[in-house]
Amino acid sequence: MVHFPNRPSIAILGSGAVGGYYGAQLARSGLDVHFLFRSDYQHVKQHGLSIRSINGDFAIPAGDLHAYNSTSEMPRVDLVIIALKSTDNPSLATLIPPLLHETTSILTLQNGLGNEDHLAHLFGAHRVLGGIAFTCINRLSPGVIHHQDHGHIHLGDFSGDLAPGEHTGGDRSATHRARQIAHLFTRAKIRTTPIANLLEARWAKLTWNIPFNGLTTLLDVSTDVLIATPAGVHLIEAIIEEVRAIAASTGIHLGDTIAADQIRLTQSMGPYLTSTQLDRRNRRPLELEAIFVRPLAIARSANIAAPHLHFLNEALEIVNNSIATGTS
Amino acid sequence: MVHFPNRPSIAILGSGAVGGYYGAQLARSGLDVHFLFRSDYQHVKQHGLSIRSINGDFAIPAGDLHAYNSTSEMPRVDLVIIALKSTDNPSLATLIPPLLHETTSILTLQNGLGNEDHLAHLFGAHRVLGGIAFTCINRLSPGVIHHQDHGHIHLGDFSGDLAPGEHTGGDRSATHRARQIAHLFTRAKIRTTPIANLLEARWAKLTWNIPFNGLTTLLDVSTDVLIATPAGVHLIEAIIEEVRAIAASTGIHLGDTIAADQIRLTQSMGPYLTSTQLDRRNRRPLELEAIFVRPLAIARSANIAAPHLHFLNEALEIVNNSIATGTS
Repeated sequence: MVHFPNRPSIAILGSGAVGGYYGAQLARSGLDVHFLFRSDYQHVKQHGLSIRSINGDFAIPAGDLHAYNSTSEMPRVDLVIIALKSTDNPSLATLIPPLLHETTSILTLQNGLGNEDHLAHLFGAHRVLGGIAFTCINRLSPGVIHHQDHGHIHLGDFSGDLAPGEHTGGDRSATHRARQIAHLFTRAKIRTTPIANLLEARWAKLTWNIPFNGLTTLLDVSTDVLIATPAGVHLIEAIIEEVRAIAASTGIHLGDTIAADQIRLTQSMGPYLTSTQLDRRNRRPLELEAIFVRPLAIARSANIAAPHLHFLNEALEIVNNSIATGTS
Repeated sequence: MVHFPNRPSIAILGSGAVGGYYGAQLARSGLDVHFLFRSDYQHVKQHGLSIRSINGDFAIPAGDLHAYNSTSEMPRVDLVIIALKSTDNPSLATLIPPLLHETTSILTLQNGLGNEDHLAHLFGAHRVLGGIAFTCINRLSPGVIHHQDHGHIHLGDFSGDLAPGEHTGGDRSATHRARQIAHLFTRAKIRTTPIANLLEARWAKLTWNIPFNGLTTLLDVSTDVLIATPAGVHLIEAIIEEVRAIAASTGIHLGDTIAADQIRLTQSMGPYLTSTQLDRRNRRPLELEAIFVRPLAIARSANIAAPHLHFLNEALEIVNNSIATGTS
């Protein structure tokens, strides 16, 4: 078991919407939090970090904000939280080492499959945890983050070394470390549940990300528009059924109400622009690998047809290529 | 056989890009052409109709242009050419009657399936012809039409009374009337081929309209972007295969090179915005019924799965609803 301190020092890699919001909450709770910024660095050095939240606005003034634009200037910490887009994963091999001591833990809050595997491969599976953030957050402008709704996190130790048949959930319990981190987060007013089966939670989240990030990006409409017609609901259900079938092929059995649950969750969110849709609007690379390509690779190896997922992925590759080449 | 005069008077219903362009060519050739305008009426009464074409620019000056904003003020004619969007079909029952004498023919240049059936139902099958326009035309501004590329027309008599097995093509020949109209058009510098099997030509055109109008509208990218990646080409091929299978279930057998042919045709067009994509951008209703819904209804009755077409259609219904409700 990895030792994890009661009051860890923390580094936030990627202080955009998700990293900035959760990091600011952790800092406000009195923890020692160090933020890596990129484009917003100059701005936050002067003006600090502002959070507009349905739970109440707050700010970390510039004088209290530990802001950096390079990890080589950051201290070694007890916990690295990764909130970069998964499209930035190739940079982690060089970004992370300056932050690590012997027992540093690494928690990725990124979407999709394969992020924990990547970190485990680089830095050892024992360091790695994954978290699934259920939240509606956007960055409004440099250093200004808007927390629209929700916000709870499920987090657990990486279980990548379990064989597929072992991912049955229920009988295992969350690790001590996951419970410690969940406790810290909860004290920082981030509702957090420690979980035993991270992969199951990842697949459950994918049943939202694949149809909703996928279709909002494809069609460039907000989430409420997707569920406003029977055609849209039917399409989302068909996509979720394919995701369920792929998950089942790995031994992860998601309940048969999950499509209805995800649609109800989306109704509660109001008009929401997903992160992938915002990436399209801002002509940044789309997170296709983690959200679409890896699940499709599993479908292929399990001989599952998944025509809707293929359609989504191929159509999004067209969009991604148009972003990369500056055409439209 | 319906009598058709050698120098027919002509009414153009819907003088947008397609109707304005072909109507202007027919008028320039010396034929008596009457144009129904809607939003552009005031403008063309003052400024006439301008065509910018890769084959040479020309104009019909206001003094020479027979422009109307109501069919009740138009003369009865020998040939009515319909170039309205198929979403306007419900208005044809009241728009067309003032234009008809005993032997008036009606030629629809609209996209998709069912337009001839609708006209035949209203005015009698003997009046009806269909034409498929292969052209890249956009309306740039009121009364100004840009003919970017291509332009040939295939036209034939409506053959809606043939049983499915009879649509085998080849052994039938185009009607005298179709050949007369093709001759008139050709004299007006519109390259036109009279055809025997209109339905086969409609399905062949659908193998372009379904993937290209569909995906350009879905993704809001021009045609060249769709074929710029292997993923895009693969997606288009998969869609065309489904259209071919549906056509085959009605006895219409499209060649197995048609996907490659359509992709090559699209390469020749350069960056092109389809009419449906422009409808989306201008927040007008999309032509889903004729291009997607009717082919899918045939797929359903023939028990053909067609998951890509279902995806396209349902996703476009989401877009269409967002246009209708003013959301995005």
